[in-house]
Amino acid sequence: MSYAEPLYPVSAGEYSESEDWLDAFRDVRAVTEQLCSPLETEDYVIQSMDDVSPPKWHLGHVTWFFETFLLKPFLRGYVPLNEAYDHLFNSYYETHGSPFPRPRRGVLSRPTVAEVYRYRHYVDEAMGLLLNNPPSEYRHAIAERTCLGIHHEQQHQELLAMDIKHILAQNPLRPVYTERLQVPPKRHPVPMGWRSYEGGVVSVGVKPGNGGFAFDNERPAHRQYLEPFDLATRPVNNQEYLRFMEQGGYQDPALWLSDGWHLVREKGWTAPLYWMKENDRWYHFTLRGWRRLDPNAPVCHVSFYEADAFARWAGERLPTEGEWERAATHARNWNGNFLESGYLHPVAAEGEGLGPLRRQIPLQMFGDVWEWTGSAYRPYPGFRTLSGSLGEYNGKFMSGQMVLRGGCCATPASHIRPTYRNFFPPSARWAFSGFRLAREATTP
Amino acid sequence: MSYAEPLYPVSAGEYSESEDWLDAFRDVRAVTEQLCSPLETEDYVIQSMDDVSPPKWHLGHVTWFFETFLLKPFLRGYVPLNEAYDHLFNSYYETHGSPFPRPRRGVLSRPTVAEVYRYRHYVDEAMGLLLNNPPSEYRHAIAERTCLGIHHEQQHQELLAMDIKHILAQNPLRPVYTERLQVPPKRHPVPMGWRSYEGGVVSVGVKPGNGGFAFDNERPAHRQYLEPFDLATRPVNNQEYLRFMEQGGYQDPALWLSDGWHLVREKGWTAPLYWMKENDRWYHFTLRGWRRLDPNAPVCHVSFYEADAFARWAGERLPTEGEWERAATHARNWNGNFLESGYLHPVAAEGEGLGPLRRQIPLQMFGDVWEWTGSAYRPYPGFRTLSGSLGEYNGKFMSGQMVLRGGCCATPASHIRPTYRNFFPPSARWAFSGFRLAREATTP
Amino acid sequence: MSYAEPLYPVSAGEYSESEDWLDAFRDVRAVTEQLCSPLETEDYVIQSMDDVSPPKWHLGHVTWFFETFLLKPFLRGYVPLNEAYDHLFNSYYETHGSPFPRPRRGVLSRPTVAEVYRYRHYVDEAMGLLLNNPPSEYRHAIAERTCLGIHHEQQHQELLAMDIKHILAQNPLRPVYTERLQVPPKRHPVPMGWRSYEGGVVSVGVKPGNGGFAFDNERPAHRQYLEPFDLATRPVNNQEYLRFMEQGGYQDPALWLSDGWHLVREKGWTAPLYWMKENDRWYHFTLRGWRRLDPNAPVCHVSFYEADAFARWAGERLPTEGEWERAATHARNWNGNFLESGYLHPVAAEGEGLGPLRRQIPLQMFGDVWEWTGSAYRPYPGFRTLSGSLGEYNGKFMSGQMVLRGGCCATPASHIRPTYRNFFPPSARWAFSGFRLAREATTP
Amino acid sequence: MSYAEPLYPVSAGEYSESEDWLDAFRDVRAVTEQLCSPLETEDYVIQSMDDVSPPKWHLGHVTWFFETFLLKPFLRGYVPLNEAYDHLFNSYYETHGSPFPRPRRGVLSRPTVAEVYRYRHYVDEAMGLLLNNPPSEYRHAIAERTCLGIHHEQQHQELLAMDIKHILAQNPLRPVYTERLQVPPKRHPVPMGWRSYEGGVVSVGVKPGNGGFAFDNERPAHRQYLEPFDLATRPVNNQEYLRFMEQGGYQDPALWLSDGWHLVREKGWTAPLYWMKENDRWYHFTLRGWRRLDPNAPVCHVSFYEADAFARWAGERLPTEGEWERAATHARNWNGNFLESGYLHPVAAEGEGLGPLRRQIPLQMFGDVWEWTGSAYRPYPGFRTLSGSLGEYNGKFMSGQMVLRGGCCATPASHIRPTYRNFFPPSARWAFSGFRLAREATTP
Repeated sequence: MSYAEPLYPVSAGEYSESEDWLDAFRDVRAVTEQLCSPLETEDYVIQSMDDVSPPKWHLGHVTWFFETFLLKPFLRGYVPLNEAYDHLFNSYYETHGSPFPRPRRGVLSRPTVAEVYRYRHYVDEAMGLLLNNPPSEYRHAIAERTCLGIHHEQQHQELLAMDIKHILAQNPLRPVYTERLQVPPKRHPVPMGWRSYEGGVVSVGVKPGNGGFAFDNERPAHRQYLEPFDLATRPVNNQEYLRFMEQGGYQDPALWLSDGWHLVREKGWTAPLYWMKENDRWYHFTLRGWRRLDPNAPVCHVSFYEADAFARWAGERLPTEGEWERAATHARNWNGNFLESGYLHPVAAEGEGLGPLRRQIPLQMFGDVWEWTGSAYRPYPGFRTLSGSLGEYNGKFMSGQMVLRGGCCATPASHIRPTYRNFFPPSARWAFSGFRLAREATTP
Repeated sequence: MSYAEPLYPVSAGEYSESEDWLDAFRDVRAVTEQLCSPLETEDYVIQSMDDVSPPKWHLGHVTWFFETFLLKPFLRGYVPLNEAYDHLFNSYYETHGSPFPRPRRGVLSRPTVAEVYRYRHYVDEAMGLLLNNPPSEYRHAIAERTCLGIHHEQQHQELLAMDIKHILAQNPLRPVYTERLQVPPKRHPVPMGWRSYEGGVVSVGVKPGNGGFAFDNERPAHRQYLEPFDLATRPVNNQEYLRFMEQGGYQDPALWLSDGWHLVREKGWTAPLYWMKENDRWYHFTLRGWRRLDPNAPVCHVSFYEADAFARWAGERLPTEGEWERAATHARNWNGNFLESGYLHPVAAEGEGLGPLRRQIPLQMFGDVWEWTGSAYRPYPGFRTLSGSLGEYNGKFMSGQMVLRGGCCATPASHIRPTYRNFFPPSARWAFSGFRLAREATTP
Repeated sequence: MSYAEPLYPVSAGEYSESEDWLDAFRDVRAVTEQLCSPLETEDYVIQSMDDVSPPKWHLGHVTWFFETFLLKPFLRGYVPLNEAYDHLFNSYYETHGSPFPRPRRGVLSRPTVAEVYRYRHYVDEAMGLLLNNPPSEYRHAIAERTCLGIHHEQQHQELLAMDIKHILAQNPLRPVYTERLQVPPKRHPVPMGWRSYEGGVVSVGVKPGNGGFAFDNERPAHRQYLEPFDLATRPVNNQEYLRFMEQGGYQDPALWLSDGWHLVREKGWTAPLYWMKENDRWYHFTLRGWRRLDPNAPVCHVSFYEADAFARWAGERLPTEGEWERAATHARNWNGNFLESGYLHPVAAEGEGLGPLRRQIPLQMFGDVWEWTGSAYRPYPGFRTLSGSLGEYNGKFMSGQMVLRGGCCATPASHIRPTYRNFFPPSARWAFSGFRLAREATTP
Repeated sequence: MSYAEPLYPVSAGEYSESEDWLDAFRDVRAVTEQLCSPLETEDYVIQSMDDVSPPKWHLGHVTWFFETFLLKPFLRGYVPLNEAYDHLFNSYYETHGSPFPRPRRGVLSRPTVAEVYRYRHYVDEAMGLLLNNPPSEYRHAIAERTCLGIHHEQQHQELLAMDIKHILAQNPLRPVYTERLQVPPKRHPVPMGWRSYEGGVVSVGVKPGNGGFAFDNERPAHRQYLEPFDLATRPVNNQEYLRFMEQGGYQDPALWLSDGWHLVREKGWTAPLYWMKENDRWYHFTLRGWRRLDPNAPVCHVSFYEADAFARWAGERLPTEGEWERAATHARNWNGNFLESGYLHPVAAEGEGLGPLRRQIPLQMFGDVWEWTGSAYRPYPGFRTLSGSLGEYNGKFMSGQMVLRGGCCATPASHIRPTYRNFFPPSARWAFSGFRLAREATTP
């Protein structure tokens, strides 16, 4: 299953060519290596389930991207370090050679971790040559693809955090990624309120000329008609989810989509992923190790099915992605608990959630947890796939998945925007995924 | 997998209480038995794959529906013929007892076919008593549920045709359902044209007070914004699909959704279901046996993935269900090649497809083949599940499936309407499923 | 998995050519049809697991055997009733055309049961012509193959009983094969004793010139050295097996072969196949329906793993097939509870089990239950496969299976002998399989 | 599947207590680490299939054995380095805590390789204390168990070689274990001859008082009757096996056991494991990398099914283990190509294979390749399992496997003897397994 691979779409050139791409490139490369710095060599090699890739594979793959789409076509005289890497680090480009089978990534002891780093630095150096002195006729394409490669590597930074967490969580020795992460703050509970939105025709997706990078699946901007709706002012938190569990949420088939109910029984789900009860207390696995649940933090590592069942139990529903985007577009900033905050875990909401005139404003729309929406991941009207290997598969994951919005505690802050569409199969739980409730507008 | 079960939603009472429900009941019951009349006893017992139910199970299940939701609650003194049938013929109502496991339906030799017919007639008689003299306080509920049971049985009439076809197709003896079916007419090819539709806000779904029966998943009526679009004037036909095959459609991963491509390789798909090449000629299995392909008939028994791949190959796309419904709403009638036409197979389009002023009008919107749309099967805004066992699972299939529209050659004519939403997983091929192309509006 | 198919070896001609083969043929054919006479048409069609074949398939297959190996080669002018049957009713002869896939036998509604009987009678008639007037140059081969076909059909009589039982047992309606079976006698418990045997060189297998039919896997006679051993005077009975269960036999991994323990956990085994506890009482499924367990009857429908675990729990072991045959060879007769006794179920041992001088003699060596031995099913030294399709696969099942001895309540009496080697995979439970204990000789 | 785990039986004390067990212990420990010295850290972590264990797991497990069965019971004041290792490094002792699931060994990045070595050295030191000064009341048990632990570690040395080979063979980078292995000698072909053996009663298994270590499955010595037989003077070689392949061996079902034929088709076997044809030449993977096939070296990495099919094709058979042992018992020495020879690969036979009076003597009975026999792995008459965790599972693998004899190029020379019984499932190919032909005695 290749659904965990991020898309590599071609941007529409909506970014400044005067930006210092070499600086930006070096920054993103450094963050990736920083993320891996607490790992033991052995951690880099593990594939704990088919969806997970060994960390060293991520390191090689993002490097392969720059080599394949920039160095080979544009750097005169570039000689690859190892021709075999083209096969090993191709994720799913079936027309670009043949990708090494994804579920077998965990049987590869070679190249070693040191060799993968050597590959990174070899490519880094070549990228320095290219970006310092790009051939003028390709200047545009080079900037465009470098920008894409940077966003691609940011996607893999989040995947690295997810996959490292999953790898460590399997281990009965209960290893800790690093103790040097930020300790989540203790906060007072924030009550969940509702913010109302009028109906009408809204614009969804990225408008031409908006000046920033965006993936092709956010395009084109188009109109949707929304009926009036209410949106919860924060995501559902652990305490609320515990109540669902205690009141038999995982035992009542009437709450579940049919496919979800089959999974509950087949997998024996009784709680979110990474939860464990010991001596009558709930713990969950975090990158700081096994910790007591914070009742006020957003529930995390739930599947779409669990989010949907909770909503049904609560008498509400999940928002569509159009509704979510409409609400998010009004946000004054896109701040939140992202990768840079150093928690690598969702934290409790803060403040009262009130704006001017004490009107309710939604909290935590960005960061903390990706929010499952009720929308299936399908192309926007007018969506077109692009030519060539880069665009070959732009839309090929647009079946069987659901859209999530808003980024999470493992997403780089500069990677997110209100139009960003993430997607996972409804059964996936290893992403930092939570949810927020919505409902039809109540008559005022 | 229970996705092949039709929904049993509660209608909203939009039908005449003065209708003669007993007549309607008897009519639908007679059609079901007529459909089965060509079968051998042995045919009734087979489950050729998990999605297929033995025909005798269908006969029992639709009967169980009337017994469970009408006779037991409303007919004073009703004594079931056999208490065990409640378990055996419950399809998926998990709160109503426990359903017998679907994939094991094919291991049940008992009740015998004769006993199932005895059960039918026992319930028919009791329904006669009830409908002839309904207790006045339940008159409304009885009419409502009888209407629902009738539509339910119509859904199973189509499933019977699908399942019988699948059962017979497995058999190397190449049995024929019956030779007495209508012979498809030979017709001249009708060229595929395009009809343009303006964009704007449209109403989708069943409006209150429209006077006919509809399932809950067609409700509530709501507004959608459509961008301008063009719709093909007829479904893709066998000749066009053959060209796709001959030009390598099943060999080029760039044309396929990722999940579809995996299926192509895993299952070895190289043609629609029921197709076979012998001595350089293409044949397909029909209920009249193995027959030469009619190049002008709509392609049938393709999955969503195949429809989607064809559209990408053709440079077009599938319509959304909103687009399809908008076009269908303008139809002057809902005529077409339905169950009653006696073909039990799609036939070639007829005529020129021109309306007044020689404007293009879409042909075969109704009947012949269900048309895959590009829309995932999700609830309409404002959709609510209903209380009680009948409504328990109304929306529980709303994940992982795609919407199909328009009915097919095995659908009873009185069962279809422009708002009707059928749904199957994108991999399903045993329904009479084809597709029609759409595209963004061309600038005039 | 084709292990349930009996072998079709060529006999060595050790039978009288003067026997009336037509009479013998007609007798065995009649018994088969008598066995099926209580079935409903629907029962004939079911394949309740991969190992089970639909009864109508058995009826056709044994007929195909006579057609393929006698009528086609030897009856001048013979025209098959239906050429397609050669493919459908071939069990596993891969060089004789291609067999229809075994696990798909249950999807075939055609030929109908009536057609299969028509096929039987068509072949019966042709066999009458052939046997009444065999061409003199083939007289020997015809007698030999007819004899083989008769024994082959007897094997399928037992398989029919096993498969019919399995088919009916799946059905929640708890159908009964027929009430007209013999009611098992109530008998006093017979204590289990031990009979001692001296060691030394013994002959195992069929000796040349012994005058009766035998399969090739019983040949050649050869010498084995046996250490002195004791053999239990009767099979383990239900009461003893219940004690094993109550004392945690299914919970203690130390008692089990590793493969067996995996099965116990994977399948959730806690009792023999067909056992059920209701209201604190044990019942088991018999061809007379669900019945109370007779504590004195031999335990039945246990796998080799269960037999082996019981023996370890009891501090004993299973006999080797050499030991079993040595003891059985001394039997004065081969009487027992076979198919003809009309129980179709094992019954309690009778009498004291004492011979002349009140010496212990083993009871129930023949009939009641097949007895698992500790011997893997491998060829005897000097075993040779034969040429041609008949002998093609004589030894092809000689891996992964264990030997059982002595026949059971569903074996025709004329089919058994002390040298007879039956075999099943160690996991199989749907045969009428039990076991008898053995041990190293105790010092006198 | 736990079949790849060696047995840990209790020896019968047939060894000198005066032996310097500390020296012997240190020797075997050093060899294990030497075997691993060419590995990269990443190689230690991989589990390339369920049967394979990560090398670091082997290192930990053999250490756990000494800790569990010697240090914990006998070294006063011993404190384990890490209590969790008891769970992680327990292979299959279900009564000794609960073993970590075998197929999940490859998801454990921790303990790291360095930590595993630390564990080894911690235990080595403690073993030094214990063996230098064993408490006198346990002196016998300590010697016995140390001896057992040493043989256990030798078994894992061979498993390490097998598993390392399998791990490296998966890698498209074609890594080499080490170039420093001995280069196989080029030798003239030795023709395959036959040596005849008389029939009669022979003793099989280890006789009491024979003075050396042996596993419990080699006991007790007992008598077998052998018919006269011939044994090939050397194993089948690559050239002979190629002829089998070229003459359609993998295409003819008549040559195969039924289970083997299913595997051939399901897995697509067309050659032994690790064989590859490139540019019309055959190569195979060795620990020195991909190399040209030596036509004169014994064929290796074949399953029992392939060995059996070859024998049938050749008109011969495999020897029984009794036959093999009878022939091996006459050998004047047990020399051969073992681990110490430094090839880690079978090499061609040498010399003429003639003994005194130019009588044929079998070559390569010991070393090079394990030889599949035709004997199922079952207990010898009188075999008894022992009490306690050590003996808990002595016989638990005695179903579904076949016996192999003689050791191979990865077996330590001091580990083998004529009575040694190795065993693998008939489908296994990753052991260094070949075979030798046998036949019924030809009349002189």
